[in-house]
Amino acid sequence: MTSLGVDLGGTKIMAVLVEDGVIVEKAKKSTPKVGTPSDVLDTIAAAVAKADPEGRADSIGVGVPGAVPPGSGVLSFAANLPGWDHVVDVASGLSERCGDRRVVVDNDVNVGTLAEARLGAAVGVDNLLGVFMGTGVGAGLVLDGALRQGPRGLSGELGHTYVAFREFDDALVGSGEVEDYAGRRMMETRARARHAAGEATALVDLVGDGRMKSSTWEKAIEADDPMARSIIDEATDAMATAIANAITLVDLELVVLGGGMAERLGEPFRADLEQRVAARAFTGGAAPVRAAKLGDTGGALGAALLVDDIR
Amino acid sequence: MTSLGVDLGGTKIMAVLVEDGVIVEKAKKSTPKVGTPSDVLDTIAAAVAKADPEGRADSIGVGVPGAVPPGSGVLSFAANLPGWDHVVDVASGLSERCGDRRVVVDNDVNVGTLAEARLGAAVGVDNLLGVFMGTGVGAGLVLDGALRQGPRGLSGELGHTYVAFREFDDALVGSGEVEDYAGRRMMETRARARHAAGEATALVDLVGDGRMKSSTWEKAIEADDPMARSIIDEATDAMATAIANAITLVDLELVVLGGGMAERLGEPFRADLEQRVAARAFTGGAAPVRAAKLGDTGGALGAALLVDDIR
Repeated sequence: MTSLGVDLGGTKIMAVLVEDGVIVEKAKKSTPKVGTPSDVLDTIAAAVAKADPEGRADSIGVGVPGAVPPGSGVLSFAANLPGWDHVVDVASGLSERCGDRRVVVDNDVNVGTLAEARLGAAVGVDNLLGVFMGTGVGAGLVLDGALRQGPRGLSGELGHTYVAFREFDDALVGSGEVEDYAGRRMMETRARARHAAGEATALVDLVGDGRMKSSTWEKAIEADDPMARSIIDEATDAMATAIANAITLVDLELVVLGGGMAERLGEPFRADLEQRVAARAFTGGAAPVRAAKLGDTGGALGAALLVDDIR
Repeated sequence: MTSLGVDLGGTKIMAVLVEDGVIVEKAKKSTPKVGTPSDVLDTIAAAVAKADPEGRADSIGVGVPGAVPPGSGVLSFAANLPGWDHVVDVASGLSERCGDRRVVVDNDVNVGTLAEARLGAAVGVDNLLGVFMGTGVGAGLVLDGALRQGPRGLSGELGHTYVAFREFDDALVGSGEVEDYAGRRMMETRARARHAAGEATALVDLVGDGRMKSSTWEKAIEADDPMARSIIDEATDAMATAIANAITLVDLELVVLGGGMAERLGEPFRADLEQRVAARAFTGGAAPVRAAKLGDTGGALGAALLVDDIR
């Protein structure tokens, strides 16, 4: 079984040729910064041709940064892709450019979760949540062994669930969604607000006016910076609450934790999160949190798996 | 197609004979207040014999007040049933008592949701949440047309999801779970605490030291009692948050709202809840909340449907 998987991201496009669950070829292209969706599709087709010049894969799976209604193959909106403010038929557009091969499309976080379930940290587990912490918080669900898409392709939007239904006195920003506490963008906004109010922090010392990256948070924690500790403590609580809620709502056996922030914060963060999840999940504490295994290539690998999973 | 459904509750046992989705016979028995699970099974068998004296149904479905691991037919614990503090094989025990007929068992709220999906307020909808407000808050999920049970039978425990991940200053009781704000038992605890602190309320005027029922809350709201209004306002926010979180997490098309409290609070409560859910759900506001249609017999009807749904 040979198939091709594409991970379409805001900065890069990765295509992998997969044989029996193993990546045998890999190609990367930069995502166009300007232009139209058509330019993006051209670049994907170029990456596909580079990874599979002989056309050995008869089907192509694509993970895209947005919601895809099941079976539709279309992406309606993507903030990080040039000119992508209208409905684009990715499946047809890419099929035309790739010798009329079958193209299957789903959300990038969904396919990343699928990859962890089939080939990564959750092999053999039928009910799981994949959570990926980066600029925001993304998630996907596998239920009874199958990827959950939802009627509008919106399943797994854990980052937009609420963990505070009324404002806290100490809330500086946000509306109570998980991403307001545990997404890197909003964590920086919190840190900047506290710094502007006179609180010193290694976070600002490290980057000045530059963007706080996952590595910035890692360094600040290593330096035992009080503000970084307190913001990450709050992020951990928010994540633990939302993850526990997911476990309690649909009865999950396992959580896979990935994404740049989780990787940088490493094992102490994972262990702390796992403990706080267990305290809140309505399953007698049985809610292991495992580190994702597939890293950067998980998305493309999961997209290749889509070809078998969704027909 | 003839089947038999049983709703096993803490106060009564209802058995219905169902032909092609229509109840043709109905029998009620009081649930034993003392004794053992064996006495409860005897009473269920008596209700079954009363509803179906000729043994026309070849299979029996039972909804029970607790978690049932899929396919197991067992109930491990039920706070409201006498002596039910250990694992009891309901399927085998009832089958023995009912001429060795096949018996299928699931959680009572799950089967109530199934009934609303197949024959009630959500006919034709494949992805929905059923929420039932009473002493506590129970819920069930239908995903892609099938009842979601979960590997431990714990799916749908919406009442135990958290809507406040850290304590509010004004929190009087509870740990931040939905039931702490929207379950009738905890709503009474809140009201009693505020009354003890000197705040007057029709709620206490109406019942004195007696228990506040759903009808008590209805009357207090009709009298425009400020404390009842404020506690129900908070309950509405907590419910809206948890429901929106469920919609956002698994992508649902519809919410069915039932249970004694929801029935008593009626259309104004439903409409208010629907509006607040729409404001929080990550689906562009498409999250209709409909009143349950099947009332008291929904549980037994759903149990009869189980016979076809789960094999």
